[in-house]
Amino acid sequence: MSRTRIHNLAISLDGFATGEPQSLEAPFGHAGHRLHAWMMATRYWSPTGSTGVDDVFAQQFGPGIGAEIMGANKFGPPGWQDDADWKGWWGPNPPFHTPTFVLTHHARPPLEMEGGTTFHFLEASPAEALEVAREAAGGQDVRIGGGPTMARDFLAAGLVDHLHVVQVPIVLGRGVRLWDGLEALEEGYDVEAVSSPTGVTHLTFTRKAAS
Amino acid sequence: MSRTRIHNLAISLDGFATGEPQSLEAPFGHAGHRLHAWMMATRYWSPTGSTGVDDVFAQQFGPGIGAEIMGANKFGPPGWQDDADWKGWWGPNPPFHTPTFVLTHHARPPLEMEGGTTFHFLEASPAEALEVAREAAGGQDVRIGGGPTMARDFLAAGLVDHLHVVQVPIVLGRGVRLWDGLEALEEGYDVEAVSSPTGVTHLTFTRKAAS
Repeated sequence: MSRTRIHNLAISLDGFATGEPQSLEAPFGHAGHRLHAWMMATRYWSPTGSTGVDDVFAQQFGPGIGAEIMGANKFGPPGWQDDADWKGWWGPNPPFHTPTFVLTHHARPPLEMEGGTTFHFLEASPAEALEVAREAAGGQDVRIGGGPTMARDFLAAGLVDHLHVVQVPIVLGRGVRLWDGLEALEEGYDVEAVSSPTGVTHLTFTRKAAS
Repeated sequence: MSRTRIHNLAISLDGFATGEPQSLEAPFGHAGHRLHAWMMATRYWSPTGSTGVDDVFAQQFGPGIGAEIMGANKFGPPGWQDDADWKGWWGPNPPFHTPTFVLTHHARPPLEMEGGTTFHFLEASPAEALEVAREAAGGQDVRIGGGPTMARDFLAAGLVDHLHVVQVPIVLGRGVRLWDGLEALEEGYDVEAVSSPTGVTHLTFTRKAAS
């Protein structure tokens, strides 16, 4: 059965998944690279990286995924909708390698990139977008790619089967919070936590089987 | 050297150290006992409890402590100041066993309890209160007993040498947040995280040696 998955969603101790303000120069605002340094130190990211618990979690990102859904705030900096040449942050060969649906109020034609990524621009509710993405995924899983607002919307709508959150031991103080509006989220999931020697803690939420 | 310590401060994934509303019947509001179930399952709490990582952390509460400082919200439910007979939540023999300073705008005479606990009622800033408590501790450490607002005030004032936070895998959604106003707290500390098989994660902040 096709599942809906979120991977490598990094947050600070105080629950911020990005700092502020977000811009072309600073996609994560004042958080800089601090929320993702754990990942950049893994073999998933770099051939000389570590191969321990951080790496095995990071590696889960790709396998079994047939499509991604991302929010407009992940695709580009504020205002990208007014730049007809903007093709995302990731260069000619983005790391998605599947149909990738960008939820935006500004429709534009699909954008075929190298390596199997095609960006589709879609105005839709989470449930509608998931239906379209699942169709495109051809029986494989759908990844909710973020940002945090998008992740929160899908979680609040009860559409997520697997959630992997990486808690980084910093206090950001400001930015976009992940957990807002998700009171009692844990009731629908089996939750595990495992800390890494690098200081981050991996939390996994696995949706409970329907009883 | 006398240190200032915080122990067993439990928070939800979204950073709330207590739920709401707080009352005589529900000291932690809608959080109920969920933030402290990990501790009640340890030998520290009950003779038949567990003796693993949760227990060894819980046990750190007492040794080496010569005085406690707590906030008015920890000593009693809203309005306790108007009840001359209120002597705290803990019965005749409270679990502090040292001089214990309650920060409140409503002064009252000291209250000597069984087992070595004497409650002193004090109107003072965090730094002033710490000076008084350190004197009373006779060279031993001072514990900041909470609640979360008090802990945050002492952390923001740079007065805490050791902080032990226990993160419980629930999303409370509302209550009193621990981390607000503490941006970049980690810069002054060495931070460790260790997850327990029970699902909670213990975070310790050890103040860096002055360089």
